[in-house]
Amino acid sequence: MINFIYNTPTKIFFGKGEEDKIGSIVKEYGFKKIMLHYGKGSVIRSGLLTKVKAKLDENGIEYVELGGVDPNPKLSLVLKGVELAKKEKVELILAIGGGSVLDSAKSIAVGAKVDFSPWEFSIKNATPKDHIPVASILTIAAAGSDMSNSCVITNDETNEKRGFTSELNRCLFSVLNPELTYTVSKFQTGCGIVDTMMHTLERYFSVGPATELTDNIALGLLKAVYDAGKVAIKEPENYDARAELMWANSLSHNGLTGAGRPFVMSVHQIEHEVSGMYPEIAHGAGLAALWPQWAMKAYKACPDRFLRFSYEVMGITPTDNKTKDIEDGIQALKTYFKELDMPVTLHELGVKEDTLEALAYNTMFKGKRVLKDIITVDYDMALQILKDSF
Amino acid sequence: MINFIYNTPTKIFFGKGEEDKIGSIVKEYGFKKIMLHYGKGSVIRSGLLTKVKAKLDENGIEYVELGGVDPNPKLSLVLKGVELAKKEKVELILAIGGGSVLDSAKSIAVGAKVDFSPWEFSIKNATPKDHIPVASILTIAAAGSDMSNSCVITNDETNEKRGFTSELNRCLFSVLNPELTYTVSKFQTGCGIVDTMMHTLERYFSVGPATELTDNIALGLLKAVYDAGKVAIKEPENYDARAELMWANSLSHNGLTGAGRPFVMSVHQIEHEVSGMYPEIAHGAGLAALWPQWAMKAYKACPDRFLRFSYEVMGITPTDNKTKDIEDGIQALKTYFKELDMPVTLHELGVKEDTLEALAYNTMFKGKRVLKDIITVDYDMALQILKDSF
Repeated sequence: MINFIYNTPTKIFFGKGEEDKIGSIVKEYGFKKIMLHYGKGSVIRSGLLTKVKAKLDENGIEYVELGGVDPNPKLSLVLKGVELAKKEKVELILAIGGGSVLDSAKSIAVGAKVDFSPWEFSIKNATPKDHIPVASILTIAAAGSDMSNSCVITNDETNEKRGFTSELNRCLFSVLNPELTYTVSKFQTGCGIVDTMMHTLERYFSVGPATELTDNIALGLLKAVYDAGKVAIKEPENYDARAELMWANSLSHNGLTGAGRPFVMSVHQIEHEVSGMYPEIAHGAGLAALWPQWAMKAYKACPDRFLRFSYEVMGITPTDNKTKDIEDGIQALKTYFKELDMPVTLHELGVKEDTLEALAYNTMFKGKRVLKDIITVDYDMALQILKDSF
Repeated sequence: MINFIYNTPTKIFFGKGEEDKIGSIVKEYGFKKIMLHYGKGSVIRSGLLTKVKAKLDENGIEYVELGGVDPNPKLSLVLKGVELAKKEKVELILAIGGGSVLDSAKSIAVGAKVDFSPWEFSIKNATPKDHIPVASILTIAAAGSDMSNSCVITNDETNEKRGFTSELNRCLFSVLNPELTYTVSKFQTGCGIVDTMMHTLERYFSVGPATELTDNIALGLLKAVYDAGKVAIKEPENYDARAELMWANSLSHNGLTGAGRPFVMSVHQIEHEVSGMYPEIAHGAGLAALWPQWAMKAYKACPDRFLRFSYEVMGITPTDNKTKDIEDGIQALKTYFKELDMPVTLHELGVKEDTLEALAYNTMFKGKRVLKDIITVDYDMALQILKDSF
């Protein structure tokens, strides 16, 4: 087990109706003026935004608003948010929505404390030292941004999608009511299931010896998501299934499922380039297409870890042929993704074949890095994974 | 899944040599004068206290000291600590030791902000509203007090042992170096394993339907402790085994393994009376004697949960006789406790038979409460568990 820092300061208010407390929660923290940040319609249509405003009004909390966040949130809107936050001197940014809204809020939060573009943080030219606190009311179980230290933004001038991690990216608090995810479409529910699984899969499949407690938690989470996902896809208003997915979304990306292990998340890195170049592609759908091809190349480097995954998550019956058991496990996950209506090739997602080389090149930050994990992903390997996923 | 608040603000510095950072960590938080609180010798003999002082000196941090904490920490020392903390205006209490030192520090921390005895918090006559922050360098994996919201103190005038929970009881940060537990005796290692397991067992065996993610995490933690415990007892300097036990100690009592479930911890409540009346009895040893007898009475109320425990933690091979499988699982845990050299009867622990009725009466707070969990523990049930554990 390697040394680690575990820092999960986000206070979670989990369960039915918890968003009704938003006014009193914000008041208790002592904030007087906040920014409401949201997307393009669902929080308006559902009435959630109206309810939040009413609760803030009741508690005498002032607010300004910035809606319009796109999936794969754009730098151009972040810059508007930075201007607004500075001008209005907001004390808290409340993200109401999913991972995109949260990440947009996080970028605004650090951008509001500097006199340059927060894109400098995304491309690691600068490290944030201060921020406006961010909190969330989550409406989709997927990105785990409600507890994570990560923030991923797309530069809509260059089509580059870049993430940076910082402990300042941890939310102050997050309100998680599974009922708010009842209206998430089947496709978006599927994308969320993939994203949640992938945050743990990419931690679990990493270098080094077994770390039993962390491994057991990782596999237990994957199994819970696998089971709850099957139910939620068929019964979108099944509370317990939605609750399992929502809580897993948080734990999968807050550091718990990789504690004591190094992690690189190679498949995430490749996918960020795919949905950076093709912003219409949902992150989870891109991951679903890429992971199986990565896994087929990686499993020889840690067969024991893949075997546990096959047996304990995918329910493969052990045979004498361990290689087959591993490949059956990978195939079973691919089949599961199909059941979730996930496209499992880049082709289906609309990626053009003649952009694969550029995607591989971008993954290597144009030749500036190599991803060293259980297999080294360099330009050639990235290209091979992209081609095999096509 | 029931609504819950999840609040784990404690920042964890985990791994080899992490205590070397103590000076810079305290400095980074901005504290200038702190109290060092510790027990009766091991942190002195090991050189840890000297090292901590040197690191604080290097960083220009002033400190006052209060040693002498006993296992089952006493109110009389807490009161001395309150006086010292007030007089010296300390800004942080750094507990160096195990759960007893931590709980003593937590009681001082809330006591220093009021003009009455903090025992009033323990007996729930008052609720703490403010505190001096508490941090820890942990030297034994057991109580989970480094991340928990609980604090248990013994009133050495009345021999009452009482716990209270408060979010103010969460440490600001905790330093966890598994190497510091190499010198923990076999007996104390065993007690710690039992205590860690029990914090999760008493959450897992609770009312309500399955909560798959939380249940999987709980069972995965129990299995990891079971495996690592076997190794650590035989190889006290096995880093990975000590690391698994230490990390499990924290996660087992920070709320993770019971998220979304109600919990009562009936066996803990009975044991607090046992080691309250007999302060020489280690908490873990008391739990080891009591739990199997509670379990034999409780399993009919949630057989499915006991079956998962038997199969997934204790490794019982499924048969057609589910009752037998459950009882075999309970018996297997008892056998495991014996392998850890734990006394498995109250008699062996030195409890006198003519005090069992008083212990049952005290558990009910002298007739003022009944513990409603998967089975209701009233006076008669508590007495029966005590008698059968004798």
